[in-house]
Amino acid sequence: MELLNALNWRYATKKMNGKVVPQEKVDLILEAAHLAPSSSGLQPFEIIVITDPVLKSKIVPIARDQSQIADCSHLLVFAAWDNYTTDRINEVFTRTVSERGLPENRMDEYKTKLIASYTPRPAQQNFEHAARQAYISFGLAMAAAAELRVDATPMEGFDSAALDELLNLREKGLRSVTLLPLGYRDESNDWLVNLKKVRTPRERFIKLVG
Amino acid sequence: MELLNALNWRYATKKMNGKVVPQEKVDLILEAAHLAPSSSGLQPFEIIVITDPVLKSKIVPIARDQSQIADCSHLLVFAAWDNYTTDRINEVFTRTVSERGLPENRMDEYKTKLIASYTPRPAQQNFEHAARQAYISFGLAMAAAAELRVDATPMEGFDSAALDELLNLREKGLRSVTLLPLGYRDESNDWLVNLKKVRTPRERFIKLVG
Repeated sequence: MELLNALNWRYATKKMNGKVVPQEKVDLILEAAHLAPSSSGLQPFEIIVITDPVLKSKIVPIARDQSQIADCSHLLVFAAWDNYTTDRINEVFTRTVSERGLPENRMDEYKTKLIASYTPRPAQQNFEHAARQAYISFGLAMAAAAELRVDATPMEGFDSAALDELLNLREKGLRSVTLLPLGYRDESNDWLVNLKKVRTPRERFIKLVG
Repeated sequence: MELLNALNWRYATKKMNGKVVPQEKVDLILEAAHLAPSSSGLQPFEIIVITDPVLKSKIVPIARDQSQIADCSHLLVFAAWDNYTTDRINEVFTRTVSERGLPENRMDEYKTKLIASYTPRPAQQNFEHAARQAYISFGLAMAAAAELRVDATPMEGFDSAALDELLNLREKGLRSVTLLPLGYRDESNDWLVNLKKVRTPRERFIKLVG
């Protein structure tokens, strides 16, 4: 099974070699991220793709000096909506009914319920919910990269407030949640590359009930 | 590309037909979920697999009467750790150094930093972090199901406190975060099956910076 082969092949690459990932592979990885399902189809996040070496070098110190930020080919920043708003929800449903060729008011009842349930909640709660959706996409991007034998390093260890400021994310209503540098492993300088992949024993991780 | 084919094939199945998914396919789906990467490799969640019709019928009203809970073959419950604790973190690193054949203290510095950073935080913050990790696995389980042409419905619309009580999750230090019924679509009774898959326009979703 292709996905399992890919997941067994991948690892959190600790040292990259600076080689450039072909654009067509990056596009396929982004396509998988784009197709990710999300709660009510809101897709409450964006992906910022950074290739500029100067900008990457500014992010290195924000991300605990992790070298993959500089040595990757493309740096993906997953940034979640800071909140759910009536406008954002309306926009999604207007597009959905239009693309599906449905009557304009076809999803109004569902949409109204969603707005009534989400918009009174604290922004932090909505952001956390949006961030979870971004993680589905983040996972699929990693799977796609692995299937294409492109290395990637899932990264949460960075100063999100500093990155948000550098990329002007807050004024766009976004907050960075996770990073995914794409590139190629530098095998001779990566301490993790030859270590066994370890997972919680399956019987601890999966519980059968009835 | 196999993953993109699978992601284009899948949809959030609204009506299932009750047919049983072969165990070998369920095992492959769980294998993908199990291989999912997680922050520091902690895998801070479990997956509960429910097949018992009586138990499923008790979950239907907890999950807004969604029929897929009853009509699915296997119901996966993703349940995140309610908190990070020193014991939980120690256990992961003890296993990791042992399985990798490393000296016992080889990861002590990293582990100590992690414990110092996580354990003083509020339980809710740690739970939210753990939940995000579960979502990576949740996404990969959906991808695996789709690759095997098994239908699935990602579900957040349920009363997690009631489900935690029914499954005695809180006493195990777990909180349910999301559900994934696995089964097969009932094409003639599923309103969503023939509707176009809609996503945010790519240029709104992916931003190129430098």
